[in-house]
Amino acid sequence: MALYVYKFGGTSVGSVERIQAVAEKVKQAHDAGDQIVVVVSAMSGETNRLIGLAKQIQVQPTEREIDVLVSTGEQVVVALLSMALHELGCGACSYTGGQVKILTDSSHTKARIRKIDDDRIHADLAQGKVVVVAGFQGVDEAGNITTLGRGGSDTTAVALAAALKADECLIFTDVDGVYTTDPRVEPKARRLGRITFEEMLEMASLGSKVLQIRSVEFAGKYNVPLRVLSSFTDGCGTLITYEEDAVESALISGIAFNRDEAKLTITGVPDLPGVAYKILGPIADANIEVDMIVQNIAADASTDFTFTVHRNDYLRAKAILAQTSAELGARAVSGDDQIVKISIVGVGMRSHAGIASTMFKALAAENINIRMISTSEIKISVVVDEKYLELAVRTLHAAFGLESA
Amino acid sequence: MALYVYKFGGTSVGSVERIQAVAEKVKQAHDAGDQIVVVVSAMSGETNRLIGLAKQIQVQPTEREIDVLVSTGEQVVVALLSMALHELGCGACSYTGGQVKILTDSSHTKARIRKIDDDRIHADLAQGKVVVVAGFQGVDEAGNITTLGRGGSDTTAVALAAALKADECLIFTDVDGVYTTDPRVEPKARRLGRITFEEMLEMASLGSKVLQIRSVEFAGKYNVPLRVLSSFTDGCGTLITYEEDAVESALISGIAFNRDEAKLTITGVPDLPGVAYKILGPIADANIEVDMIVQNIAADASTDFTFTVHRNDYLRAKAILAQTSAELGARAVSGDDQIVKISIVGVGMRSHAGIASTMFKALAAENINIRMISTSEIKISVVVDEKYLELAVRTLHAAFGLESA
Repeated sequence: MALYVYKFGGTSVGSVERIQAVAEKVKQAHDAGDQIVVVVSAMSGETNRLIGLAKQIQVQPTEREIDVLVSTGEQVVVALLSMALHELGCGACSYTGGQVKILTDSSHTKARIRKIDDDRIHADLAQGKVVVVAGFQGVDEAGNITTLGRGGSDTTAVALAAALKADECLIFTDVDGVYTTDPRVEPKARRLGRITFEEMLEMASLGSKVLQIRSVEFAGKYNVPLRVLSSFTDGCGTLITYEEDAVESALISGIAFNRDEAKLTITGVPDLPGVAYKILGPIADANIEVDMIVQNIAADASTDFTFTVHRNDYLRAKAILAQTSAELGARAVSGDDQIVKISIVGVGMRSHAGIASTMFKALAAENINIRMISTSEIKISVVVDEKYLELAVRTLHAAFGLESA
Repeated sequence: MALYVYKFGGTSVGSVERIQAVAEKVKQAHDAGDQIVVVVSAMSGETNRLIGLAKQIQVQPTEREIDVLVSTGEQVVVALLSMALHELGCGACSYTGGQVKILTDSSHTKARIRKIDDDRIHADLAQGKVVVVAGFQGVDEAGNITTLGRGGSDTTAVALAAALKADECLIFTDVDGVYTTDPRVEPKARRLGRITFEEMLEMASLGSKVLQIRSVEFAGKYNVPLRVLSSFTDGCGTLITYEEDAVESALISGIAFNRDEAKLTITGVPDLPGVAYKILGPIADANIEVDMIVQNIAADASTDFTFTVHRNDYLRAKAILAQTSAELGARAVSGDDQIVKISIVGVGMRSHAGIASTMFKALAAENINIRMISTSEIKISVVVDEKYLELAVRTLHAAFGLESA
């Protein structure tokens, strides 16, 4: 007998009919003899509706009260899903985050889980019941309701799976798994049967929005096997685990990309210690997040410094940089907001040389000019002109043989 | 400095604008230097919406889950009202029933309050905050969410007022107080400045649906002064307390009536011990509630027995009675569902004779035939043909001088 944590997002529980379909799926697994804990989000649209009400009252709603308000969204769904299970003759019991209890710190609207009390859940499971838990929410030491922030239901599911030592945490969503790249860009993109936590983290942070980064970090930290699969179709999805058999693993698992980037360059900066801080300090002070950073040392004791920011922050960052340039006596400031970042991700890189040159050769063959390069242990990112995005992704997908299994 | 518990029903918090208006009213009282605890219901319509969702899933929804579901309605309002108070610069903090905590038994959907923990509320009040509590809900020993049943927010308010030893419990509603009778029947009906708990109980159970009976019983038991007043207009409403000054109190406080009655008579029943049980036992077994009961002893050792039931139960009760009649060898069964009950209520009856004869004389002067009479310590009820309802109420209103203060 295995213990599974199932998590269903807002779209999967967006109507009475869909809640009934979720109940059918859960009952099948329960009938097969497994112990099932279900974590659910609010019905799609409900959290935004509630926040809309709050904003009619307060421009900046009190965070403690926002948590009291929005946590009702998941509470409604745990009750309805338990009823749907009862209607199918399947024993079930609902719990709010506070009832479980999922103890968090007191950072309202972005709380972090500290501890989970699993006594009631184990008692219910032992009685053959399905346990239905409200995602996204918890309670602090003083008994105040907290929420984990957007997407926090994934984190609830993984944390529960870790606390209960579940065999697997299954995240049901509106996609049927993690793909080698976005199928809208490369129709030959293939669903991965397996991917490592590290690869998933690189894929997620680079724009493949299948799972919340925090839940993947959490799953990796507590070694909870995580499976992403579709609520609406059958299939075994993508399993995210630790690398078990490096020999068989592909060189590259997937290609991520991010359209929301813009790049800024300051040239002819006197190459003195502390110059990077002098350039990026004012940017950070303005609350602008910096992604890639590249610095070349020039021959004439000056340096060129390039970094990327979110496209929405481009003009603001450029104005700050112009100011810095004048202060540092740099030569010029330039920038471009028509660029994209493309990354190849794979733990296979660790043990195989020549991945970077394969990448650069494939792009060169298509006359795609690389504007920036940045590497980490399991990924290589390049910045290219936005117009080359689709061509570059398809070229790399073919170059690394991702279309075949 | 006084401590008040304010209670606002679903209509009073039915929209963002109305919640803001409630916040203004509460802030005024708080600014005047009083300590305020506010109890709120769900926005009007919300509880029915949630139950509607449940009934799409289960014909007989699981009661534990119904409580988890509908308790979200008040939780939304406590958060929004706290925000509205913050927006006005007034410190406030929201609590669910479970957070207060309001400990109840485990009778889901109709739980009874056992104990209220007032530590957090007193701590917040001491800090100058308004405390906003979700009505209608509590939590049992095991931490399950419970609800007190329809209208339970009034009970929450009174129970909190008792636990906190509040100076007064103010129930804001859509009427501006308790009237001598229904103003739609007698336009000269006058708002009472004061009424006793016992009178209010008789008025409420007789069809003046201003307050939930249970909350009035509770207020009486714990001697919590209760005030009914309007959310939408200014005014001091009606204060419900113990009789303090019987000399000044009017003979009659008000005239209640009930259109939903039907009467049934069984005549010529052998007058033997246990005959009342033989007649009413089968009615009770069929879950039909009996209101008035009158028995006349006839000269010929037989008896006539008359009782009233809800008009919806008339045909069912009549069929049962026909069966009983055959078994007992009674003479006949008759009935009438075109009757109404009219009652005069007043603690003044206790110390004044002649009230009944004044009533009967006034009705006789208008040729209104009395079909049944029943009396208690502080009320006299008569059954008359439905067509006389308005005339009878207006006649009695004038006969007891209720239009003048």
